[in-house]
Parts: sequence; C-alpha cells; structure tokens
Amino acid sequence: MESDYGVPRELSHLQRSRSLYQPELPPCLQGTTVRVEFGDATTVADSSGGHTISQSFPHTYGQRLAHFLRETTKVPGAQIISTHPAMRVGLVFCGRQSPGGHNVVWGLHEALKIHNPKSTLLGFLGGSEGLFAQKTLEITDDVLATYKNQGGYDLLGRTKDQIRTTEQVNAAMAACNALKLDGLIIVGGVTSNTDAAQLAETFAEAKCSTKVVGVPVTLNGDLKNQFVEANVGFDTICKVNSQLISNVCTDALSAEKYYYFIRLMGRKASHVALECTLQSHPNMVILGEEVAASKLTIFDLTKQICDAVQARAEQEKYHGVILLPEGLIESIPEIYALLQEIHILLRQGVSVDKISMQLSPWASALFEFLPPFIRKQLLLHPESDDSAQLSQIETEKLLAELVEAEMNKRQKEGLYKGKKFNAICHFFGYQARGSLPSKFDCDYAYVLGHICYHILAAGLNGYMATVTNLKNPCNKWRCGAAPITAMLSIKNDGCGSRAMTIGKPFVHPATVDLRGKVYELLRKNARKLLLEDVYRNPGPLQFDGPGADSRVVSLYVEDLDYMGRIKELNEYLEKVRGIVKPGCSQDVLKAALSAMSSVINVLSIMSTSPSNTTSA
Amino acid sequence: MESDYGVPRELSHLQRSRSLYQPELPPCLQGTTVRVEFGDATTVADSSGGHTISQSFPHTYGQRLAHFLRETTKVPGAQIISTHPAMRVGLVFCGRQSPGGHNVVWGLHEALKIHNPKSTLLGFLGGSEGLFAQKTLEITDDVLATYKNQGGYDLLGRTKDQIRTTEQVNAAMAACNALKLDGLIIVGGVTSNTDAAQLAETFAEAKCSTKVVGVPVTLNGDLKNQFVEANVGFDTICKVNSQLISNVCTDALSAEKYYYFIRLMGRKASHVALECTLQSHPNMVILGEEVAASKLTIFDLTKQICDAVQARAEQEKYHGVILLPEGLIESIPEIYALLQEIHILLRQGVSVDKISMQLSPWASALFEFLPPFIRKQLLLHPESDDSAQLSQIETEKLLAELVEAEMNKRQKEGLYKGKKFNAICHFFGYQARGSLPSKFDCDYAYVLGHICYHILAAGLNGYMATVTNLKNPCNKWRCGAAPITAMLSIKNDGCGSRAMTIGKPFVHPATVDLRGKVYELLRKNARKLLLEDVYRNPGPLQFDGPGADSRVVSLYVEDLDYMGRIKELNEYLEKVRGIVKPGCSQDVLKAALSAMSSVINVLSIMSTSPSNTTSA
Repeated sequence: MESDYGVPRELSHLQRSRSLYQPELPPCLQGTTVRVEFGDATTVADSSGGHTISQSFPHTYGQRLAHFLRETTKVPGAQIISTHPAMRVGLVFCGRQSPGGHNVVWGLHEALKIHNPKSTLLGFLGGSEGLFAQKTLEITDDVLATYKNQGGYDLLGRTKDQIRTTEQVNAAMAACNALKLDGLIIVGGVTSNTDAAQLAETFAEAKCSTKVVGVPVTLNGDLKNQFVEANVGFDTICKVNSQLISNVCTDALSAEKYYYFIRLMGRKASHVALECTLQSHPNMVILGEEVAASKLTIFDLTKQICDAVQARAEQEKYHGVILLPEGLIESIPEIYALLQEIHILLRQGVSVDKISMQLSPWASALFEFLPPFIRKQLLLHPESDDSAQLSQIETEKLLAELVEAEMNKRQKEGLYKGKKFNAICHFFGYQARGSLPSKFDCDYAYVLGHICYHILAAGLNGYMATVTNLKNPCNKWRCGAAPITAMLSIKNDGCGSRAMTIGKPFVHPATVDLRGKVYELLRKNARKLLLEDVYRNPGPLQFDGPGADSRVVSLYVEDLDYMGRIKELNEYLEKVRGIVKPGCSQDVLKAALSAMSSVINVLSIMSTSPSNTTSA
Repeated sequence: MESDYGVPRELSHLQRSRSLYQPELPPCLQGTTVRVEFGDATTVADSSGGHTISQSFPHTYGQRLAHFLRETTKVPGAQIISTHPAMRVGLVFCGRQSPGGHNVVWGLHEALKIHNPKSTLLGFLGGSEGLFAQKTLEITDDVLATYKNQGGYDLLGRTKDQIRTTEQVNAAMAACNALKLDGLIIVGGVTSNTDAAQLAETFAEAKCSTKVVGVPVTLNGDLKNQFVEANVGFDTICKVNSQLISNVCTDALSAEKYYYFIRLMGRKASHVALECTLQSHPNMVILGEEVAASKLTIFDLTKQICDAVQARAEQEKYHGVILLPEGLIESIPEIYALLQEIHILLRQGVSVDKISMQLSPWASALFEFLPPFIRKQLLLHPESDDSAQLSQIETEKLLAELVEAEMNKRQKEGLYKGKKFNAICHFFGYQARGSLPSKFDCDYAYVLGHICYHILAAGLNGYMATVTNLKNPCNKWRCGAAPITAMLSIKNDGCGSRAMTIGKPFVHPATVDLRGKVYELLRKNARKLLLEDVYRNPGPLQFDGPGADSRVVSLYVEDLDYMGRIKELNEYLEKVRGIVKPGCSQDVLKAALSAMSSVINVLSIMSTSPSNTTSA
C-alpha cells in the first residue's frame, strides 16, 4: 500500500537523536559551485573483453573519468558548472536493503534544493515495480524528517531488483519520459548497476534525455574495483555481525561446551565473513574463494573442521566459533555442479518432485547422500542473478551434521578421545541489514547522494558516483564519477561462470583476493585464532564516544585510492611535459625519450601478461 | 584447562574504554563504615507453605530483613559494623552466563580489599564443578583488569549449575572447610539460589562456619519477588534482543514479503519477550503465561496467527514480526503433557528410539502428527530444573510450518485471497547473552558485589543481596539483604508443576503477571502493534550519549520498591508509638485503639483471602 511509504513515525530516543545528526561534506562539495575535471577516457580492467564491451555499449563506452574539485582549485581544463536549471530526478532502491540507503536520498535531495529550489526529487515506491508502474513519492524535508540516518529501505520500499528484460527496460524508459525525468538514480549492488549501465546505453541509443546514475549501495561489499573502494551498508553490517559473533565467542568461552557454526549474509563473495573475522577473531573462517581455488569437496571441508576440533580437544578445548559465508555452498565444486543441473531442470519447467529422478547418476548420488532439509533447499528456484537462494540454504547445518557424524565415527574408532562434539547453528543476516547505519555509512551515503546531483549537473550518463580515499577522515575524501562500462567484464572469475551470464558484460562481484593484503593478514593469524581463543569484542555499534568513528579493518589494510593514483600519474606526465618544453636542451630531451621508452616497454609487457587480470 | 581462566587478553578499543569505566556506589555504601538496620522477621508470600518451609529450614527460616544505611543515618537500633577482620571468600558462577556477572566479582573484591587488604577472594574455576574439585583462582587487580564491565563468565567459567545432591552438597562443604572460607557467594538464577538456601541451611546444621550468600544474576529476569526488583543481565539481554528485533522489523517493512518468527531465550517465563515487545513494537507476541492461562492448544495458536496474517493481508500487508518466548512450548497444555510422558520414560531409562511406542495413545497421536525435527527435539533429556531443553526446541519453526500449511489450506478453499505466506525463523539467545553489559547491569552488579561483603561482615547466612528503587538513579538506590527462605514457595503457579519439585520448597521463577501493569500496557497496544506497524528501534546498546542511561521499560511501569514500603510502614508504626506515649490523653489513646483495631480487621481478612497469593 503506497500510502504507508514515507509516513512520519514514532522514533525511539536514540533514533531521534540520530535523525538530527548532520553528516559533513568533503571540501570539494562545499559551497554552491563545484569544478569538474575530466580525466582520460576509461578502458576496462578485463582487456580481453574490451572489444565486446565497446561494441555492446557504443554510446557509453570509453567515457572519461570525472573528478569533482573545489571551486578554488587551480586545475587547467577543469570546468565550473555555474548554471543550475531546475531538474526532475527519480530514484529507485534495488535489491537487498542496506543500512545507509536513505541517506543517498537525503544527500541528493539537499544538493538539488541548494542549487535550485524548484528541482524535484521523486522516489519510486516499491522498488523497480514502482518504477515500471510510475508510482512515486515526492521527497520533501517533511518526508525525510524521520528517515535521516535511519536503516532499511522503508521510506520507499523495494521489491524485485531487476530492470533487464526488454519489457522492463521499456517500462522504465516510458516512466522516465512520462515523468520528464532529467535523471534516474539506481541505488543497488552489482546486478542493479549492471542494469543501470544497460539502461544508460539504451536511453542514449533511443535519445531519451534521462541520464542514468548508479550508486554503490550493497551490504555484500562486493561492488569493488579500481574506482569503487567500498559500498554503503558494508561497514554497518560487518559491525553488527561482529558484535553478535563476539557475543557468541564470549558465550562459547563461558560455557565451554558448544561449537557455533555461523553463516553470514554477503552473497557469492566472502567479504563480510573475512571482515568479521578480522574484527572479532573467531576460531575459524572458511572462505568460498579458498574452497573454490583449492577445489575442496564437502568431505575435505568436513575433515578440515574435524581436524581443527581434534587439535583443540588436545588442548582441552571443547568449544569454538566457525564462520561460513552464505556463498560457500556454491564454491564447493561438486555441489555447484549439482546446483547447475537442478537449475537447468527448473528452467526447463521440471516440477520440483521430479527433479531428483532426472539428475545425472553422480549428481543423483550426491543429492541422495545429503540430508533432507538441504535437498529441499537446493531445489529452490535460483535468484535473479542466477545464483542459488543462498540465504535459504543452511550450509552451517549441513557442515555441523557432517562434522558431528565424523567426530562420532572417529570416537568409535578410537581416533578421537575427547568429549562429545556439540554444535549450535546460526544464520546472521536479516537481523543486521535493518540496523541503524553506522556513522561511516551515514556520511558516505550522504556524500554519494550529493555527487549524484553533480553528475547530472555535468550532463553525464551511465556513471557511478564514487568517493575515494575513504580510510581518511571525510575532509580528505575525493569525489568523482566513473563510467559503469569501465567496471564491466565478460569473464567470471572466482565462483565459476553462470549459465545465463556467459559472454555478457556484467559488473561482476569482486571476490576476496587470495593474493591481497587482507587475506594475507587473515592467513598470518589463522593458527593463533584457531588454537588460542584470542576473541576480540568490538562491541555494539556506537554513535558517540570511543569506537563511533571506527571503520572496517579491510579499508585500512587494502592498498586503495586508485582514483588518487590516476590523478597523481597525470600530474607526473604533465610535469614531464612542463620540463621537456620546446627549447629545452638536447640532453634533457634525449634522457626523457630514453626513460619514457623504457617505461613504455615495461608497461606493455605487464599489460599483456595474464597476471593483470586479478579481481579487485 | 584452568590455566586459561583469568588470563589477560586483547581488548578492542571499545572494550578497553569500557574496562576503565568506574560504576558509582549509592551513598549508603560509600566510605568505609556502613550501618545495618534489621527489620522484622520475614515470612513467605505463599502462606500455605510457610509451615513446611519453616520445618525444612529450621536454622535459616524467619530471619530478619537487613537494610544497609549510611554511617551518619540516625536510626535507633541500627548497628555500625566497625571491626573488619580479614576474610576468605569464595565465589561461584552458576547457570547461564548473564552480562554483568564479572562485576559482582569486581565489586566484592573491591569491598573486601577496602575493609581489610588481607582479605582474599577466590573464584571457583568452571562453575560448581570447580567448587566440588576445589579449583580456585585468587582474584587480584591484575586478574580483573581486562574483565571489568565485560560480558560472559569467562573469567571463571561455568559448567553444571547444580549443587543439590547429598554428594554435591558434601563436596561443597568440604571445599569451604578445606579452603577455610568465611563466605561462599553463589551467582545465579532461581535454581542456583534455591541451592544456595539449601546449602546455607545444611552448613548451619553442620555448624560449618561458611556463610552462604546468593546474588540474583540471570538473563531470564524471572528471579523477582517482594525483595528483588530486577536481575543482573536482563537489561542487557532485552536491549540486545530489541536491537535485533527492531532490525528485523525494519527489514520486514523494507522487503514486505516475509513473516519473521523469532524465539527468545528466557526459560519458562516470558519476561524477555514481553520487555522486548515494549521496546521494539513487533506485530505480535505470544506469552507462555497467556497460553497456559487460557489453555490454548497448538491449533488454537496456529489459528490465532493465521487470523492475524489474514487481517494484515486485508490491508495489503504481507510482512510481520512475531515474538515467541522459548518457554511457550511447555505452556501449550497438550505438548506439556506429552513432554511429561516423555520425561518420565527417559527417567525410567527407556531409550530414545523406543519412547514413541510406549506413549499413551493420545500422546502418541500428537507425537506422530508433529514434524520430525520437533519430535527429535522433544526427545532430548530434560534440564537440571526438570524443564525441557527449551533452547533446543524450535517452536518458531513448528508454528511457522503449521501457519504456512493452514494459510495454504485457506487459500485453496478460497478463504484467503492474499499473496503466499512466507516465513523466516530465528532464535535469539546465544548472540545476546555474551554481550558487553549495559551501564545499568554494570552498575547494578558492582553494587551487589559490594553488598555481598556487607552481608558477610554482618555475619548473615542464607541471604540474598538486594538493591531496590532501581528505576531511580544510583544515588537513590536502597541496599539490603533478604533471607532466601522468604522467597521459597511450595506451589508451582503458572506453567504447571514439575514432577521432581512437587512438595519441595523452591525459589520458583516469577511468571508474567497477567493482572499486572506491564501486561496491561501490552494488551492496551496489542491491536495497534498488530495492524499499524508502529515499529520502534531502540538501536544498538550505547555506552555514551543518548540512550546510554536508559533502563528496561517494565522497571518504570511496575509498581516496585517493596523494601522501601516495608521501611515506610515501620516508620508509621514508630510514629504511632511516639504520639501515643504513656501520658498522652485518654482521647488520643482511644482514637489510636479504635483506628488500629479496624486496620487489624481489614488486614486479617485480606491476608487469609486466596487472592493474596499472586505471583510477584
């Protein structure tokens, strides 16, 4: 019922106090005038797919990076945007609700009104369904009052997260035309931003005047690449989950009789599980990326956990906490293959009760081996991105059962002499994603909302709002925009390729980089975490006092600020040009030529070697 | 491994900052000298059991209430305790870990050392097992440093929560004698404090010089009576659970497609579920006490929920949040009867796989009707207090399945025309009870620790430390001690009687008073909560800024301060004595006689009427 959206509501004491919190703007966005500097034309990190992508996106491929700068910054070529006609903008929430989403709306609304009070922001009600049906709510200060810095997507709601079929794309275009929108803001993760890129291209092709802008909002934290350092919602989700994991660790250490198997939300990639491990130091985490890379079977995993239980039992420890990402189930090779068979049969319209009979012999054997509750869950229809319904598959229960059976077997055979193994299972997902957003997510989302305005004011289409240098305080943040086409790739690394996305350009979820610094930090401490119970409790999310300004550990460990480095490189190139001006000495020119030729050689070799296709 | 207890550990930023927090002492406990005023001899609220209890506890029944007062308070008869010989005290954690437990240790340690630096506090390692085995850790400032204001029981650990069999009681007495303890502090809930009362009596009988003191620490919040207003841990548990429930509510309202069934820890009584409802305003809560009182069957409950789902569907609402206390399952009459049959067979040594065949015909029919996962859980061995293993029985899944089946049936029959019903189930327990304690629980536990010292200094045995007037700031708190025997009762109201406790005096869990003000508040708002989605998010537990000093709602709503009123009554009686002194006029004396005779008549009638046996 759309009349329920955006209604004022009773806030608790803390909610009220949060609703009065005013995020800061970085210096470049303060004041009423902003400069835009355009960088070089973008390419794609996946160079092998560049040609296909450029052909699929003739209007929006290869656009230049944009940097937003203070009015007073002296950069040759940066243009000042000084005219601000009234604008009509629509915004739609797509996909899983992520804490902070409301602040994108607030930031955008504020930027629109500051630059021209006659501008209008329309929120689509009930997600993409509301977009297709042209159901809108005009965003006003009154509407926003009880939603500022609050969690959820309930200001506007969301339903399905797809804008992909011809019918859907046409309905979206019809809505933008009918509502005379200058811009359409799509708030979401990898799937929604892929749709945004496609929509931008289709709109440009059809000469629809609506510009499409994507905003990286996803609790999964998997919309990461050269241009995007973090996603709105990830900080909050990791903090809330870490609080709960730590509480469970404390509980385990107090009662000393249970192993807790905790599955975490985060879809295919294991970023949430990895970050929570760094924050709360549980005994073990099994990353989907590790399992996929080393092709571990479900039996290997069971054995690995049993060996850990046994090693701890030798130290008289009969408790522990083990984290599993929800995407793990798809990373186990034989289960992934089984799921693929099931999904193909489902797509062929085979009814659920007949599927097991139509599986290949080996898939059927595996299927029958699995406990009934898991069988039922594996038979669920796949999601809109063709992955299994990860939130519904209780991998933690499956592993706990297999480990229990194996420990009992070892005990019978005299291989294990400790106390009986007891497991308790948890899934942490729904109880975190509706949380009040952390200060970081409030600030980040609010700034992204402002950037959306400047992208539209600069007349850009098919861009994503970006903030870099996020590990530093807000006054050091760099604001910009990157063409979404530069984030597309054809291949699908990490968890195997999906039937329906093979050969199609996609903003693929970034998986945990097993050669990266964050994973290295985990590996370095893995044995200590396993055996020494060095549990750490970051505590509940704080809004005041110690801890309120903390950020995710991975943000500090990762080597980020790609956008900053691109700018720095351009400054070097300009400096060379400045030194080697016509009239400089022959020696200087010769030295420059020699040095640059060697640089070019090195870079050419590096750019064509296969090792440059790492996931971000 | 005891060498792991009490080791210093790495604290997070927030944990470190919390470890430096210093709770306040109420004025009566400040300084080095405290007065003790003894009130009247106590009776039991359950007057029918008074005789049996007095016979079972000849040494510890009928002791007087004790109030601790400031040194400067002028109360006739209050004695100053001025000698403080060195004391040896042992402390044991019993039962489920509750946030704040560590602060009892800290408060007691500090009080001991202030009054005599030569005093010693020994913590028993691994709960009652450590007590029996005489495994101790001497508490020092160093040991406490990283445990002050921290959650869990991991400073000392806990195992089984029973000190009841002759063997156990003898082992406890042997430990107290061997370690030359002047006092034994038992930290726990209703079961542990029942054990404490029995231990005190046995020690007195055996002329063992160790005095036994109980401390009301239980997240269930069910150790409530005239003398005890609140339990350490309840505030934190309700806040953490309410945070999570609110997040789920926000999630429900954003996605608009799921009904969440959330089971809450809290054992037999529904205090946690009730308080969380008042804090977070979910759509529905089903209290075990309501179900028991109105004798609702599992089918009645299913129908009730289905009707609610249908009423919401008529308003186009296909989401909702329903809370269930873990004790609910035992409150459903037919399931309770089934559980009793199962437990009797288990106690007779019938093996689990043979039980279903030995059930009575009707119990067998019900058992076979239930889904396999519930059957397996109902067959678990009962806990030490003879109740089922409530944390292991997934009542939320059972109800969700039954509701889904009934909604599908209604849909087929054309009685329900809305969207498909989808449920997601959660159990919130382990992820809350290891939490960092709230400021209230830190303060309350710390003060109780101090009171334990004064109880021992006054030479009292079989008492529980009490603080009343808790809804006011700490500087208004009243400190005292009440004989545990005054909290015992024979009957078992609320959830039916247990096979093993019939006729035995027990500190029974206080159930939710269906005639009380807290329940009234719930009922008044029930329809609004059900239909209007007035969700409220108290937010994560805060330690600074707004919300940090909030307390549970029920503390404000309930009409508490029994101890304060007892004192006030004594003051009135003293005043009458003061006015009507020998030498006063005949008229005054006559008026006093007439007035007092009428008071006595009224009170006599009230005290014998059956309605005075309300649960606290």
